[in-house]
Amino acid sequence: MRRAIYPGSFDPVTHGHLDVIERAGKLFDEVIVAVAHNDQKQSFFTLEERLALLRNSLDGRNRVQVEPLDGLLVDFAVQRKATAVVRGLRAISDFEFEFQMALMNRKLEASVETIFLMPKEEYTYLSSRIVKEIARLGGNISNFVPSHVVDAFARKQKQ
Amino acid sequence: MRRAIYPGSFDPVTHGHLDVIERAGKLFDEVIVAVAHNDQKQSFFTLEERLALLRNSLDGRNRVQVEPLDGLLVDFAVQRKATAVVRGLRAISDFEFEFQMALMNRKLEASVETIFLMPKEEYTYLSSRIVKEIARLGGNISNFVPSHVVDAFARKQKQ
Amino acid sequence: MRRAIYPGSFDPVTHGHLDVIERAGKLFDEVIVAVAHNDQKQSFFTLEERLALLRNSLDGRNRVQVEPLDGLLVDFAVQRKATAVVRGLRAISDFEFEFQMALMNRKLEASVETIFLMPKEEYTYLSSRIVKEIARLGGNISNFVPSHVVDAFARKQKQ
Amino acid sequence: MRRAIYPGSFDPVTHGHLDVIERAGKLFDEVIVAVAHNDQKQSFFTLEERLALLRNSLDGRNRVQVEPLDGLLVDFAVQRKATAVVRGLRAISDFEFEFQMALMNRKLEASVETIFLMPKEEYTYLSSRIVKEIARLGGNISNFVPSHVVDAFARKQKQ
Amino acid sequence: MRRAIYPGSFDPVTHGHLDVIERAGKLFDEVIVAVAHNDQKQSFFTLEERLALLRNSLDGRNRVQVEPLDGLLVDFAVQRKATAVVRGLRAISDFEFEFQMALMNRKLEASVETIFLMPKEEYTYLSSRIVKEIARLGGNISNFVPSHVVDAFARKQKQ
Amino acid sequence: MRRAIYPGSFDPVTHGHLDVIERAGKLFDEVIVAVAHNDQKQSFFTLEERLALLRNSLDGRNRVQVEPLDGLLVDFAVQRKATAVVRGLRAISDFEFEFQMALMNRKLEASVETIFLMPKEEYTYLSSRIVKEIARLGGNISNFVPSHVVDAFARKQKQ
Repeated sequence: MRRAIYPGSFDPVTHGHLDVIERAGKLFDEVIVAVAHNDQKQSFFTLEERLALLRNSLDGRNRVQVEPLDGLLVDFAVQRKATAVVRGLRAISDFEFEFQMALMNRKLEASVETIFLMPKEEYTYLSSRIVKEIARLGGNISNFVPSHVVDAFARKQKQ
Repeated sequence: MRRAIYPGSFDPVTHGHLDVIERAGKLFDEVIVAVAHNDQKQSFFTLEERLALLRNSLDGRNRVQVEPLDGLLVDFAVQRKATAVVRGLRAISDFEFEFQMALMNRKLEASVETIFLMPKEEYTYLSSRIVKEIARLGGNISNFVPSHVVDAFARKQKQ
Repeated sequence: MRRAIYPGSFDPVTHGHLDVIERAGKLFDEVIVAVAHNDQKQSFFTLEERLALLRNSLDGRNRVQVEPLDGLLVDFAVQRKATAVVRGLRAISDFEFEFQMALMNRKLEASVETIFLMPKEEYTYLSSRIVKEIARLGGNISNFVPSHVVDAFARKQKQ
Repeated sequence: MRRAIYPGSFDPVTHGHLDVIERAGKLFDEVIVAVAHNDQKQSFFTLEERLALLRNSLDGRNRVQVEPLDGLLVDFAVQRKATAVVRGLRAISDFEFEFQMALMNRKLEASVETIFLMPKEEYTYLSSRIVKEIARLGGNISNFVPSHVVDAFARKQKQ
Repeated sequence: MRRAIYPGSFDPVTHGHLDVIERAGKLFDEVIVAVAHNDQKQSFFTLEERLALLRNSLDGRNRVQVEPLDGLLVDFAVQRKATAVVRGLRAISDFEFEFQMALMNRKLEASVETIFLMPKEEYTYLSSRIVKEIARLGGNISNFVPSHVVDAFARKQKQ
Repeated sequence: MRRAIYPGSFDPVTHGHLDVIERAGKLFDEVIVAVAHNDQKQSFFTLEERLALLRNSLDGRNRVQVEPLDGLLVDFAVQRKATAVVRGLRAISDFEFEFQMALMNRKLEASVETIFLMPKEEYTYLSSRIVKEIARLGGNISNFVPSHVVDAFARKQKQ
């Protein structure tokens, strides 16, 4: 059985992430979506909210797990017996950063391969950061995230 | 009549910005310089100071307005009946970010076109951020910004 | 009146080119599509064929002319009293080359401004070169070029 | 069973290619190395030589086939029931070109996914083109290609 | 005598930095490693710690000095009679930023030349930032920094 | 004594090349400009013409030699006891190619260091190729090359 990890902050999950998960699902027998719990960078949604939004988006899909990620990605991958780490590759700045991370991870643990998938071109320039920015300014984000994520923004902004 | 919006933080206005405004002025009947009021990112100069520095720099130019920008850029553009958003394009990292913003804006409002202009090559690597860094370290910034902006730095640093 | 030049080899015209022409048409009163006659680089379609395919694609559009371009672009622009040269900006490699050309043109003739437009994202990675490659290998190019260009390929390949 | 295609010109095969093939072999049940027969671009080694050099390099590996590729890559992939096309991703210029090809292939055939793998960093800047250039100038290429490819260069250059 | 400045934050020094220092040492008669004291950006190690870690790493090397850098780099270079500023050039994002800084420094002081060296390829994607991230998550950083820097992390994290 | 090699095709020499040579002259005791004799790529000026145009441009400068380069660059560097290879770094596409060459050269001969210098920003986008293109179309190239190179174009084009 071939298992892949798809790591990220998912703050929040976007259509771009879901597109990558679907593509990974065709290449691997199981995909674990690993949500980074970074206590240094402040997230908009809490870890629990981010996990819930992802699980809600992926409801009904077999062979996709959503789990929090605490320590080093490669340790998590080895522990879960994953063959590969999956990353979506968008623009140039992504590419550099992704390469750096992937080479570092390979140095730390040679057995885990990083593979890059290309999201649908209409999601090429989509990012969680820009979705949060548009939401903050009162713009309509329903083309970029599932409807229950739109609702989560509304609830969060009311607070 | 064709009207363009030139948005930015202008913290502070540099010769590079003024060069783009002049070029835009030849292509459009009116240019609105829209100064983003971002209450999340701390600016060096206040919104009022940034507006004043720009107006001072553009004094005497017809057909150029300076206005604060509060909400979404595309909403502002539609409200002002602008045909285009103008952006200066410098280096590669710019290019990626600018493309992302422009595609997002097009998704949000298809009627507003983003056009990219190329500043004078001697301003290619000029940015407000680097000007602030040089000023902070006591360097001479008079080649990069108008003289009244040099004065504004001096006043600000005395405080 | 503001007139723009949109130069290229158009070997052959693609949906990406037509998208840029349409966008330019909203910003300028007249657009001249200038087809480079390069006797050094062998083209697949002759200059006459490329002009005809463009004219056929643009039939019925006012304010768009198709003309051959023989000498220097900036001389042509000055002669036609054009304010601007329009270029579609796609990927990174484009960006570098386009910048180089635009700076050179500015050195040769400061009065002509180059402006960059962003084609629809689904055309971001479309190029005449790749269309010719797919056609050569027997692939279906009908998503990338107008139907009369598909026919032109068929006629050309029979020869 | 999951099968992947690894296409290229392999003119000639380098250690970088072999590294990608090995990585792909861990992710897929079978890998078909597809050698493009491009009658437009002149190759240094003939198609037959390139196939032989690859087969010699891969001798003894199960689950790796070497085959000529004549038509469109996606048609070949569908015909061979391959789930994925594998590409090694090296530097920036690669990235742009690879993205363009992958998006085009997806347009032509949505069922075939392109995945990108990262060769060992010491092969990051290795290419067949540069190996040929060094061999032409009499340099030592034994760090870049298998020894039987070094021999093939020697035989070819004697002709 | 030719003297070069190698500036940076060195938070902390990595094998990549030491590699650049060694290369610079072959090109210049003396190298001054200048450690930026940036009171705006919070560093992990204090200025004193960063100086000590560098000096410890460079112990026994003649013709290499380690000094704090307070004001503008170019002022420091002129004061120390340095001919050149040395920078390691890694990936694309580096390149843009480095170019911007180098052009600005040239504008501020034309007599100081910036030269770029290429670190060993296995250090191409190494950075202090990523080392700190791995250490924070409990990963093994002994391939990336000298052993006394590994110890310094351990001491710091105990606090 | 520190000697550097500055290799290239110089077809023809431009103000950008001369700017790099001058900068290299301040960092090294001697600079050898090495003109590649590539019998595979057709040059506009012959090797002899390119050597003569360079020597004419550099007339009166001590410590700069102009020589043809036939074999591998690193062999030439070792033979001439050069410490470094100097390259001008312009735009992104340059960067990738230059990195690839520099890493290859280091693999072939570790003792030769490649250093990158940044030409004056007004020469950033200047290249021999674009100069030839402008000359071919009858444009004025006197801002880009020395006057005797302008004359050489005129003589060549009369033939």
